[in-house]
Amino acid sequence: MRMYDLIYKKREGEELTTEEINYLVKGYTSGDIPDYQMSAWNMAVFFQGMNARETADLTTAMAESGEQIDLSDIGGIKVDKHSTGGVGDTTTLVLAPLVSSTGVPVAKMSGRGLGHTGGTIDKLESIPGYNVKVGMEDFIKQVNEIGVAVVGQTGNLTPADKKIYALRDVTATVKSIPLIASSIMSKKTAGGADGIVLDVKTGKGSFTPTLKESKNLASSMVEIGKEIGRQTIAVITDMNQPLGKAVGNALEVKEAVETLRGNGLEDMEKLCLTLGANMLIIADRVNDFEEGYELLKDKLDSGEALQQFKKLIKAQGGNSQIVEDLSVLPDADYKIDVVSDKSGYISGIDALEVGLTAMSVGAGRSTKEDEIDSAVGVVLSKKHGDYVNEGETLAVLHLNDKSAEEKAVNRLKDAFVIINKEPEKSTLIYDTIK
Amino acid sequence: MRMYDLIYKKREGEELTTEEINYLVKGYTSGDIPDYQMSAWNMAVFFQGMNARETADLTTAMAESGEQIDLSDIGGIKVDKHSTGGVGDTTTLVLAPLVSSTGVPVAKMSGRGLGHTGGTIDKLESIPGYNVKVGMEDFIKQVNEIGVAVVGQTGNLTPADKKIYALRDVTATVKSIPLIASSIMSKKTAGGADGIVLDVKTGKGSFTPTLKESKNLASSMVEIGKEIGRQTIAVITDMNQPLGKAVGNALEVKEAVETLRGNGLEDMEKLCLTLGANMLIIADRVNDFEEGYELLKDKLDSGEALQQFKKLIKAQGGNSQIVEDLSVLPDADYKIDVVSDKSGYISGIDALEVGLTAMSVGAGRSTKEDEIDSAVGVVLSKKHGDYVNEGETLAVLHLNDKSAEEKAVNRLKDAFVIINKEPEKSTLIYDTIK
Repeated sequence: MRMYDLIYKKREGEELTTEEINYLVKGYTSGDIPDYQMSAWNMAVFFQGMNARETADLTTAMAESGEQIDLSDIGGIKVDKHSTGGVGDTTTLVLAPLVSSTGVPVAKMSGRGLGHTGGTIDKLESIPGYNVKVGMEDFIKQVNEIGVAVVGQTGNLTPADKKIYALRDVTATVKSIPLIASSIMSKKTAGGADGIVLDVKTGKGSFTPTLKESKNLASSMVEIGKEIGRQTIAVITDMNQPLGKAVGNALEVKEAVETLRGNGLEDMEKLCLTLGANMLIIADRVNDFEEGYELLKDKLDSGEALQQFKKLIKAQGGNSQIVEDLSVLPDADYKIDVVSDKSGYISGIDALEVGLTAMSVGAGRSTKEDEIDSAVGVVLSKKHGDYVNEGETLAVLHLNDKSAEEKAVNRLKDAFVIINKEPEKSTLIYDTIK
Repeated sequence: MRMYDLIYKKREGEELTTEEINYLVKGYTSGDIPDYQMSAWNMAVFFQGMNARETADLTTAMAESGEQIDLSDIGGIKVDKHSTGGVGDTTTLVLAPLVSSTGVPVAKMSGRGLGHTGGTIDKLESIPGYNVKVGMEDFIKQVNEIGVAVVGQTGNLTPADKKIYALRDVTATVKSIPLIASSIMSKKTAGGADGIVLDVKTGKGSFTPTLKESKNLASSMVEIGKEIGRQTIAVITDMNQPLGKAVGNALEVKEAVETLRGNGLEDMEKLCLTLGANMLIIADRVNDFEEGYELLKDKLDSGEALQQFKKLIKAQGGNSQIVEDLSVLPDADYKIDVVSDKSGYISGIDALEVGLTAMSVGAGRSTKEDEIDSAVGVVLSKKHGDYVNEGETLAVLHLNDKSAEEKAVNRLKDAFVIINKEPEKSTLIYDTIK
């Protein structure tokens, strides 16, 4: 087999065999296939695409390129949740205790944030004492004991995906549906999930800004799930404004606690219940979506979900007092009101800009080596559809470095689109693909 | 400027500026832009193409990437001829003396053969004593004295093209019209030609098998010529059978001499007169095609063209006796008749297969390091449209290594397509684009 022929075939729009895709992934990971051939192949895929079988084969080959997590010592169906990357997306912090409070095990390995989207592990580390570095044995033991664990990813998972992604990143081939889909699904597969619920973000500030692209990506991943025998449900959700109100690590933990207390913003609660209900369907805990939704709503209302969060924090060495007293969490020195220059209705909040602003004041990393500041970030006071008066607060900037204030305030102000007419109600959930 | 953005732009089908193309060619030649980015860009060009301006800019940037031949010390308009690669294409050996016999200077630098197509320099080296390594000063002096010189290419011409071509060759991006066109035209430009006549081969055994592709390539190169101010005429000619009758180095020299004596096959003579007439048009030696064609025919008939070949060989130290006595040329030990298994009309001769067979018996190189055997090759006894009886000779294989006989004979036999009905007359010249 020669890589040349595989580039040629894909260039001509032909289908690659399973053997050819395995050869390509193994060869590239080992270094036998050079970067310049792989990048030509990636670009050919960008133009010619891949069918469901090829995409599934690529997923499997990348999943098998490194270590694979074995969760078989945990009883029941293990369902993972993945978001294609949003701003202020605190759902994992809510879903882990919420879903596990129904008796469905949640064994979650999460990553750190990079760029304008936050990482669950960074958020959890803002809880004093919370330990994200848990060994495999303890991880499984904890899930079996209390039903939930959320730890940092360890081990050399999907090295093929890492290497291919790094190459795509510098050769303008990131934005290919089959390549994005296989990259995500290979990580979930190597992570040991039996089933996967995907939160595919759509709109500005997401990987797939148009609904059409988002649906294509969602369908591609659901198809992969079918091919590789891991039930997958994709929910297409809005990212035309940040989710909930908080963007920043400790700020999002606070928002998660508020949501678990039943005091969360409507969009945040609804998205958590929707994603969670689909997780319960895959886990065979409920018969249909409505049953799952109601069950989870009960767990919120009864306080059981909040108590489950407390258990989780305690089990991983964190100060579980935060569940009752949010002031235990780090707090920024300065809270700056971002006020509106004019009166009108909010018709949009640029999630990408809000995410980048939070990053610029220390809430996120622009390179892997950057240190983050847990306390800082943004809390929105207004959301889509709200009316704001001139001089009224749009958002509050939480800041430790005063020198970053002016630029960040202006940027946040510009992120709000304010119009005279009341805008149409925004959609939170666009579609569910299964 | 970042290469990433240039890949992205081309991927999206946008036009690159002159500055961007210069940046790309300089950066890649110097090694600042890595192979993997260049190969992604090449593949994006494969799918999105380039317009005439971009293609001309790429041509100029590659021409200026290395040494450039200065022919200004030779009076008059210097017209170069280039073929996109045929089998048994002996036209340069005929055209150089033929065109220069009309007073138009021919200062020709040629390459060696690689793969199934022969190289002019290899052919000339089969003439005992002929020196292809002539310095620049002597080269120009010779053209000024006798009107013609045919030497091997020296100097580091178009290193950017060499590097890009080598990369395309291993990443399945050779077959892109703007990339082929700019590669050819950059070499001609760096070679110092004021004007260019292109022989674009079409049919099996050529770079562009379909007439449509051949016309696209021809038009692209003529457009480049306009953009960079070097008058270009492209003639689209048949490669559904080898040109003339000889394939192999000394064998093709013999055929060239016969053609200059007026005894050449019809297709060979006609193609030489056609290409030559277009060279005379660009050189401003004649007013129109017919005048050029007639003038060149006169030079053949009068023997002046043959005498000019004699002068050329003598000037470069070769045994010019060959013009009178072809037996001075190297001769193979064995002449094997390839006989037909059946009776019928020849409806096609696979030029690629004939070229590869000649190569396999030693007439060509499969790698740059291979030695070639001047004497060996193939002489066709029958051409398209001829009738052949069972047991009659189709071709004669000239061989020094008997062990190669069986395979070569079978391969040649298979290259002939023999049918019962008389086929339509084949076309030699499909179109002229200027």
